[in-house]
Amino acid sequence: MVVITLTTDFGSLYPAALKAVILQINDKANIIDITHSIPPADIRAGAFALYSVVEYFPRGTVHVAVVDPGVGTRRRPIAISAGGQYFVGPDNGLLIPAARRLGEIEVYDIRNEKLLRNVSSTFHGRDIFAPVGAYLSGGMQFKEVGNKIDDFVDIDLEKAEICGNKIKGEVVFIDDFGNIITNIPQEMILKIANHGEDLCVSGDKMPFLRTYGMVGIGDVLVLIGSHGFLEISANQGNASRVLGIENRDKVTVKPLGKRKC
Amino acid sequence: MVVITLTTDFGSLYPAALKAVILQINDKANIIDITHSIPPADIRAGAFALYSVVEYFPRGTVHVAVVDPGVGTRRRPIAISAGGQYFVGPDNGLLIPAARRLGEIEVYDIRNEKLLRNVSSTFHGRDIFAPVGAYLSGGMQFKEVGNKIDDFVDIDLEKAEICGNKIKGEVVFIDDFGNIITNIPQEMILKIANHGEDLCVSGDKMPFLRTYGMVGIGDVLVLIGSHGFLEISANQGNASRVLGIENRDKVTVKPLGKRKC
Amino acid sequence: MVVITLTTDFGSLYPAALKAVILQINDKANIIDITHSIPPADIRAGAFALYSVVEYFPRGTVHVAVVDPGVGTRRRPIAISAGGQYFVGPDNGLLIPAARRLGEIEVYDIRNEKLLRNVSSTFHGRDIFAPVGAYLSGGMQFKEVGNKIDDFVDIDLEKAEICGNKIKGEVVFIDDFGNIITNIPQEMILKIANHGEDLCVSGDKMPFLRTYGMVGIGDVLVLIGSHGFLEISANQGNASRVLGIENRDKVTVKPLGKRKC
Repeated sequence: MVVITLTTDFGSLYPAALKAVILQINDKANIIDITHSIPPADIRAGAFALYSVVEYFPRGTVHVAVVDPGVGTRRRPIAISAGGQYFVGPDNGLLIPAARRLGEIEVYDIRNEKLLRNVSSTFHGRDIFAPVGAYLSGGMQFKEVGNKIDDFVDIDLEKAEICGNKIKGEVVFIDDFGNIITNIPQEMILKIANHGEDLCVSGDKMPFLRTYGMVGIGDVLVLIGSHGFLEISANQGNASRVLGIENRDKVTVKPLGKRKC
Repeated sequence: MVVITLTTDFGSLYPAALKAVILQINDKANIIDITHSIPPADIRAGAFALYSVVEYFPRGTVHVAVVDPGVGTRRRPIAISAGGQYFVGPDNGLLIPAARRLGEIEVYDIRNEKLLRNVSSTFHGRDIFAPVGAYLSGGMQFKEVGNKIDDFVDIDLEKAEICGNKIKGEVVFIDDFGNIITNIPQEMILKIANHGEDLCVSGDKMPFLRTYGMVGIGDVLVLIGSHGFLEISANQGNASRVLGIENRDKVTVKPLGKRKC
Repeated sequence: MVVITLTTDFGSLYPAALKAVILQINDKANIIDITHSIPPADIRAGAFALYSVVEYFPRGTVHVAVVDPGVGTRRRPIAISAGGQYFVGPDNGLLIPAARRLGEIEVYDIRNEKLLRNVSSTFHGRDIFAPVGAYLSGGMQFKEVGNKIDDFVDIDLEKAEICGNKIKGEVVFIDDFGNIITNIPQEMILKIANHGEDLCVSGDKMPFLRTYGMVGIGDVLVLIGSHGFLEISANQGNASRVLGIENRDKVTVKPLGKRKC
């Protein structure tokens, strides 16, 4: 059985239409939900979600992702081949960070009309992305989808900046615990601080530790999350709510040393 | 593998009991969640959810649906055969619109006690509907479930009325984007308006367009949704919250022409 | 196909990492979500969820459960064999009530490093529990996981007390309908009351009935829930919200007779 994953901002109900269409085409597809709770139209959060899990999936997996505020306008549908996995979704950057994580990427504009259902103007997940994903999972040659392109829309999730001892980044995802995940990668934070030191994070002093249970219940800390990025958390608490930090907010980080924050 | 779908108002946890019971009877069942987020006891919303996706499922699919405020009272458990698919659930109208969408329906009262678990008075999903669905998915003859009936409870989701140029309908579903889905079918709205015109919708002027991205971010529009019904939406916004329109509210629609709304 | 279940407080996204890791090891695993909506770090609620459904799963099922506020500290990872099913998770009591429900339990400390991924300090679900569960589902001998232990952390969900005619218990779970599930088992309540009588529940008079629809819409009742415990409910309403009763609250129950509540 070949795995097809789904990543959307649909909430409930609409994912079932994608699953039905996939199973009509390939009844051996093993459909796995990555998430359907991306904040509506938040392409960066969707890109992060897919990026954070893609490396754990088996070779041959097909990822269908739909966070698609431009549905029915001129944005193109695309498919990508990278590192033995496949991606299908809108040309708005959503798929790029995950695909790049697997290696060299080949991006195709979806043009083969034989693969599509009767296309509506509001639900390309059902009418384009799900069927193309299903055909790929069934063994269709990748090149059958359309034509190679180079002018796809790009997103870079790792564009935090380091300047001297100070890092400027931003929040890319708030998880369901309220953990605040930034775009500051592990290697960057380890250039300015070691575990056990205090950091000044957007004006608040926080210890930089290895795991949640190393501070008291409710206390705030920063750590390198399981996805490899700097994460601001509260032990058994909701850091986003406690600190009032939301998706897309800017974050600055510097070592504290003997100064005040 | 035969597909069994689940549509309930259970939220989390209880669906797992249904899945366990199904897999004990038929370990080859491919269980697909349609939704478990129907507003509690809202039979019409459940009927709409199932109706909106049923046509995309493969022949042979068994749909188990449980929105069942009458559990443990005298309402009957029923099973339906329609267009090569099967439906199992309470006799309260929940299954009817979806089954009718597939063609002629045959409705049976579930009477065969060999198919049931030890029946509790509060959880017929686990004790009646899941096991009957599992046996059907395993190849049991449909007639084995019980006796044919004609006096089942009926629901009509498409009973919007048109009077001259004015349509009176109601809201049947609010999706997780906040899109407001009415019971006004595509054919009815196209009798009074063309795409590109303005409509007067319950006192507010709204453009009738083909897709969300044709208005500014946050702006309201009406369109024919992917389910074939008139939908009131806000581009990248939550129309239900913005307009204060909720499930079951009445909706009137008329062409605007040169008059005020 | 062998069933692997998942029970976590992860919400969305992180469960997908577990699924990916499982499918990399055993692509024939049939992954079933029990719930990912356990209140964060609420080990008792997680234990109840697993306990309430475990008996319906087929022999051979592997349950991976992760409610794990102590991740990355010294708490041990464990695996349990009981009644032909397997359990994998943290040594904090989470797995014990479910395993005991199936019979005699054998508890092992997970020590076999060949079974683990590169272990992070924040995500043992992905790095320890999912891979061990996947290997067990693929037919690995249970004893391969590590060493037998007896000093595991224990939880008893059924420790309500009866004293004369009065029962003292507590709330273990609020379901998504707002039903309040207590730790008072069926046998205990039937010692002090019969169906049809009124009870005094934490100071409020409530009828003890067989199902929801036996009172008016919105009215409160108590019944023996589908899980076998005393449940406080409101017909088509949210009892937790109406009564202001929350998880972990104490509950007292006594028969009313001719007295006031």
